[in-house]
Amino acid sequence: MGKRLLDFVNSPADLKKLNIDELNRLCAEIREALVDRVSENGGHLASNLGVVELTVAMHAVFDMPKDKIIFDVGHQSYVHKLLTGRRDRFDTLRKFGGISGFPKRGESEYDCFDTGHSSTSISAALGIARARDLAHEDYHVIALFGDGALTGGMMYEAMNDAGHSKTQLILVLNDNAMSISKNVGAVAKHLRTLRISPAYVKSKHAVEDFLSKVPVGGNAASKVIKTVKRGVRRTVLPTTLFDDLGFNYIGPVDGHNLQELISVFERAKAERKPVIIHALTKKGKGYAPAENNPSKFHGISAFDKKTGSTPDSGETYSDRFGKTLVALAEKNDKIVAITGAMPIGTGLSEFSVKFKKRFFDIGIAEQHGVTLAAGFAAAGYIPVIPLYSSFLQRAYDQTLHDVCLQNLHVVFPVDRAGIVGSDGETHQGVYDISYLSHMPNMTMLSPSTFAELDNMLDYAVNKHEGPIAIRYPRGSVQAENVSGEFEFGKSVQISEGKDVNIIAAGRMVKRAQEAAELLEKSGVSCGIISMPTIKPLDKAAAVKAAMQTGRVVVIEDNVKTGGLGQMIAELLLSKELNCKFKHFAFPDIPIPHGSIAELDKLCGLDAESIYTEVIKWLK
Amino acid sequence: MGKRLLDFVNSPADLKKLNIDELNRLCAEIREALVDRVSENGGHLASNLGVVELTVAMHAVFDMPKDKIIFDVGHQSYVHKLLTGRRDRFDTLRKFGGISGFPKRGESEYDCFDTGHSSTSISAALGIARARDLAHEDYHVIALFGDGALTGGMMYEAMNDAGHSKTQLILVLNDNAMSISKNVGAVAKHLRTLRISPAYVKSKHAVEDFLSKVPVGGNAASKVIKTVKRGVRRTVLPTTLFDDLGFNYIGPVDGHNLQELISVFERAKAERKPVIIHALTKKGKGYAPAENNPSKFHGISAFDKKTGSTPDSGETYSDRFGKTLVALAEKNDKIVAITGAMPIGTGLSEFSVKFKKRFFDIGIAEQHGVTLAAGFAAAGYIPVIPLYSSFLQRAYDQTLHDVCLQNLHVVFPVDRAGIVGSDGETHQGVYDISYLSHMPNMTMLSPSTFAELDNMLDYAVNKHEGPIAIRYPRGSVQAENVSGEFEFGKSVQISEGKDVNIIAAGRMVKRAQEAAELLEKSGVSCGIISMPTIKPLDKAAAVKAAMQTGRVVVIEDNVKTGGLGQMIAELLLSKELNCKFKHFAFPDIPIPHGSIAELDKLCGLDAESIYTEVIKWLK
Repeated sequence: MGKRLLDFVNSPADLKKLNIDELNRLCAEIREALVDRVSENGGHLASNLGVVELTVAMHAVFDMPKDKIIFDVGHQSYVHKLLTGRRDRFDTLRKFGGISGFPKRGESEYDCFDTGHSSTSISAALGIARARDLAHEDYHVIALFGDGALTGGMMYEAMNDAGHSKTQLILVLNDNAMSISKNVGAVAKHLRTLRISPAYVKSKHAVEDFLSKVPVGGNAASKVIKTVKRGVRRTVLPTTLFDDLGFNYIGPVDGHNLQELISVFERAKAERKPVIIHALTKKGKGYAPAENNPSKFHGISAFDKKTGSTPDSGETYSDRFGKTLVALAEKNDKIVAITGAMPIGTGLSEFSVKFKKRFFDIGIAEQHGVTLAAGFAAAGYIPVIPLYSSFLQRAYDQTLHDVCLQNLHVVFPVDRAGIVGSDGETHQGVYDISYLSHMPNMTMLSPSTFAELDNMLDYAVNKHEGPIAIRYPRGSVQAENVSGEFEFGKSVQISEGKDVNIIAAGRMVKRAQEAAELLEKSGVSCGIISMPTIKPLDKAAAVKAAMQTGRVVVIEDNVKTGGLGQMIAELLLSKELNCKFKHFAFPDIPIPHGSIAELDKLCGLDAESIYTEVIKWLK
Repeated sequence: MGKRLLDFVNSPADLKKLNIDELNRLCAEIREALVDRVSENGGHLASNLGVVELTVAMHAVFDMPKDKIIFDVGHQSYVHKLLTGRRDRFDTLRKFGGISGFPKRGESEYDCFDTGHSSTSISAALGIARARDLAHEDYHVIALFGDGALTGGMMYEAMNDAGHSKTQLILVLNDNAMSISKNVGAVAKHLRTLRISPAYVKSKHAVEDFLSKVPVGGNAASKVIKTVKRGVRRTVLPTTLFDDLGFNYIGPVDGHNLQELISVFERAKAERKPVIIHALTKKGKGYAPAENNPSKFHGISAFDKKTGSTPDSGETYSDRFGKTLVALAEKNDKIVAITGAMPIGTGLSEFSVKFKKRFFDIGIAEQHGVTLAAGFAAAGYIPVIPLYSSFLQRAYDQTLHDVCLQNLHVVFPVDRAGIVGSDGETHQGVYDISYLSHMPNMTMLSPSTFAELDNMLDYAVNKHEGPIAIRYPRGSVQAENVSGEFEFGKSVQISEGKDVNIIAAGRMVKRAQEAAELLEKSGVSCGIISMPTIKPLDKAAAVKAAMQTGRVVVIEDNVKTGGLGQMIAELLLSKELNCKFKHFAFPDIPIPHGSIAELDKLCGLDAESIYTEVIKWLK
């Protein structure tokens, strides 16, 4: 086998030397490299397979890093990474210490803005473009985003601002009719209309032509015709949503046709106002299993390259949540479920089929989702809106302002709470205790076993009143020797000790058990208290823990500031118990990517580190 | 003077008995009542004057409270309150214990959803409408919002969801071409286009007519004409942004013509899919000073009814911020300022005139604003984005994800931090320490005097690197005997004491001084430490405070959970200093409306309450 063309591309300059046939060959090689790598490391495959030609064409036309490209969400930046000097490290993709699965300014000068969450790209691009204009510099700024990102309101805020400002800016809409799952909503429908009008650009000319041929006589009727013609021209020619927002719309173009893309990008370069290129692509393009099941291959763990099959990883908290919710919904017809484009990831697949009328996929629109839930609750329904911890951040204000201030009964299953691993810093769910616990009327629970989750969800849906969050981790870590029964507001004393009491919640209860085992071996008598209710704090249990041993350790899957430990610290200090206190939590820095075990260790939250620190402290 | 018609309207049922002339008279009476009341109590005048006919027409046509109306933002609900049994209590508007300036479910069955922040109404209305459909009930749900709210992305998220769902829903766009100030952006421009097409509805028919008259021959050309005609029909007829989003657009209609409004609402009632009514109104309508200066009369304190003049209230923190920023921007041309539709409220008026090219009003779009700022910072500029504390909540995720994780140098002046008073619970800025302090790389400052603000702003803009927030209160409270010099990360020992040390920040430094004065009179020797840097915490100063007296009191203008006090508590407990601790902060409940002094007292944060508690504690 000869050497690949890809191996000669050390920077975009090398790519510019290739002719169109070679570029097409390069695309095929890139696809192979993507499938090879992601089948081993896991990652976002389908979206990267869909943007191979788009990325190659952009690098062929634009002059990076002088020209800037912002990848919305950023999980589709693998091709870009392969072409910008990171091919040799591509085997470290998403590994601890390796290259990130998202753009990172710290990683390469070709990455000009870090992304991770959806719908930020136009805002960032506009800021950079305006800075360019103020500095009288001359370069292009491009934002590449999927049609899924267009369901996020930030995109409209940014287009509303950009569209009237005449700042030169190039938007590239990568339309695969998919978000993570099938895209939803009126805009998606609008795009479908545009998709089936491949002759749009040409038809614009045809309309002009047509109008010019309609005769205008000299009679009274002619005045009407004139008016109508003016109206037709004004309203037909800017016909897309994007035209209404002040953009020059170009499209649709075939997003897998390199030649067409190159010529369209060349044309966009010459524009002096904001332009949007509508490219049609196929998610998963070129790898049959991904083309056939793009949702599965959106973000995937390691898989068998030949068959596309993934090993069964067993039941997760997300699965369990979904299963239990279905059981509860069978008995309570007031339950409705809302998802922000993630029916599969959050475990709602079965619910979405069984209770079609009570299931609402609102797209990547967490803000709307939470206030929609508030509306349902105000009208007497019980909305359940599972969101990943880091995505619920987007709806902080709606949770506080629309749900908590009104004390509405909305159930927030907070999935992927705590460290999530290889997606890295933008996806770590280590802030939710801090950003939810200070909201008035909010209740927060966290299960340490599946059985506890079942009981909590039943409680949250059927017995609680007011807003309630249940945070659970990625994966399936469960504590041992916990009955699974749940009593609201009450802690569970798992074991008693004489030297020190460890208080933990959720995933960290198991960690406390591991650390306690090591401590007991060293002769330290160690009690463990699980706090399935994080807010309101079980004050009596915390005080008892302090009085029993005079030493309290808190371990939590959250940052230190504003977390469970600080609530307990203030309580113990105010009670003047004269106890000693040690707090294990994530530090006040962005937490990078790696396996969950590696990151726990990095942050001193593995059992060994906790054991060592506690021993040192006791001496 | 005879009795007013208004005095006979005890519920909307009474209003339905009036004929059109009487309704018009009622509108005039309502305007008089509004000007009378707001000139005494302060409040939102111009927006209410603008919706008099809209509100009267809605109550004439719909059947509240069975039918539901959601007021976006909600400051335009005064007319509604006057008509729904709250006329007799209208003199208590915005007063402590009186009726709120915003809709409140707890206040009346006619208020179906609480609002305060912008752009939530369609989401809430859709939730209620879907609940109605699931329950097989039959009533109308209406969302009333201004064109200003349309710059907020949530509106598109909601329209995207509603527009494809065919849920019966009535949107009323109150288009006065204003946000708080003049509205901005591409959508505003789009609306202007529609405004000058008063014959839009009719022209739709004319187009159909026109097309039907274009002859289609039998030759080859006819095929083109047919295609074009189909294209024209498809693209002309749904011509507005709202049509693209799946709504049936009706408009524009004269928002001050009762008869026209009534007939349009009747028509909307009959629709079986989402409809949007575009009503043109004049902000401040009917009261000359407000018509001439709608920004001033948007939200206003008590004023002279005859002249519209307001007493000069002296310099505020907002004014001072604006003045200082201008001075800094004169020397540093990298400074840019961004506002979310509030150039006046945040003190940016002078900046906007002096540095037109470096000033960006992005509309009510805090999310976009913060990420736009991140883009500027990534490109080497120094963006300053003053937002009210309760509105920055909307950009929690962007602050964390786009600014803090990338450690970008964005300056966040957090205005109206702490208790704001008569706007009430949705506007209280008592959460920002809790929601900002746990973000990695974030720095938080809080001045206790204007001079300190000057120096902090200079530091933040010219010396700091990374994200930095400066929180300051509504109004002008300043501490005494503080030099105003600012050293980053360092506390200021204002006075020394032997019995207790009080730590405070920002507005609460003055409060600490007041409480200390009372304590000293009772023989308690009281030290005061001001913490102008909230994060990173001046640990040495906190430890020293504890060691000096063995007793530490923290007073803060924020809720208890996740605030400054808990950070200090954890520190002191971990250091095993065996000190006693008392924490004064806002409680974990929504804080209602009233004067700042009344609310401080309600929450035990006035000097007298603090004094009493501390004395009790010392015994």
